[in-house]
Amino acid sequence: MRDERDWGQFHSAANLAKSVAIEAGELLECFQWSEDADHERVEQELADVVTYCILLADKLDVDLDAIVMAKLQSTRRKYPVDKAKGRSTKYDAL
Amino acid sequence: MRDERDWGQFHSAANLAKSVAIEAGELLECFQWSEDADHERVEQELADVVTYCILLADKLDVDLDAIVMAKLQSTRRKYPVDKAKGRSTKYDAL
Amino acid sequence: MRDERDWGQFHSAANLAKSVAIEAGELLECFQWSEDADHERVEQELADVVTYCILLADKLDVDLDAIVMAKLQSTRRKYPVDKAKGRSTKYDAL
Amino acid sequence: MRDERDWGQFHSAANLAKSVAIEAGELLECFQWSEDADHERVEQELADVVTYCILLADKLDVDLDAIVMAKLQSTRRKYPVDKAKGRSTKYDAL
Repeated sequence: MRDERDWGQFHSAANLAKSVAIEAGELLECFQWSEDADHERVEQELADVVTYCILLADKLDVDLDAIVMAKLQSTRRKYPVDKAKGRSTKYDAL
Repeated sequence: MRDERDWGQFHSAANLAKSVAIEAGELLECFQWSEDADHERVEQELADVVTYCILLADKLDVDLDAIVMAKLQSTRRKYPVDKAKGRSTKYDAL
Repeated sequence: MRDERDWGQFHSAANLAKSVAIEAGELLECFQWSEDADHERVEQELADVVTYCILLADKLDVDLDAIVMAKLQSTRRKYPVDKAKGRSTKYDAL
Repeated sequence: MRDERDWGQFHSAANLAKSVAIEAGELLECFQWSEDADHERVEQELADVVTYCILLADKLDVDLDAIVMAKLQSTRRKYPVDKAKGRSTKYDAL
């Protein structure tokens, strides 16, 4: 779709990172004054964030699923179950 | 992994949306002063953004791939190839 | 201070806008999992956001106090007391 | 103005921090695809960011000018002129 529209020229990695942050702000806006957000609007904004993440991964030529799995493995190691259970403390303060 | 650590209690949809925005800020930080970012650091931060997106989709009980595809279809309709080709103009100004 | 360090070269308006967003993410991080944030850390992060706002206003050659006051006047008009009292509804839905 | 409209009830420190991040995303949007942003729109979005910063400082009962000055002093110390001149390196890598 991006290629059909010649949009690749705007899609530098830096511009895509900005776009992820912009859309993340719109996602957050759903929860600005209340915990109860409109479900459909949240879905739309979440989809926008992820779309730019996919475009950025594509630009960087990395496999998004693979880096998410790798990160998950590393987080598992940083937050062992016996220390992190039921706590939201950051790993360097555990 | 979240369940093993009893972290579900912190993972309200609102907190996850905040987390997406926080991690998007860290991703953007890779490009703060330059277009040339450290590739590995970008991957890590991108993985963090997507991880929270997955957790939020899970919390909302929606299929992330499905909403991304649905959004893509709707964007295709808003930006017809003949009007949008080679332009970064927003759809309501096309 | 910026001039003593020759940092003006990095301070394009776009880079300063990124910096505001990055620091806003760090401010938000104080409240990631809880409403109770460390007061001193919030102050520090808030100061960082405002510092970049001041640098951006300076770059754009605008008076920050003046634009804040002008915006306040315009918000007053968009949200009349009789309609907006006690509501967080956006002005176009009032 | 906030008090006339009974908006204080929505203005928890956490909600104001979210609002700063949301508005920072809108400011960034001015520069999403290009370094050249519409000057007036940037001013408006910058004013929005600062307005929420002022409300948050007020909520925390801190003097915004004072914390910005204090932060500036501390940054001066972290980035000595002789080391930081002409570089965008973070202080812990200097």
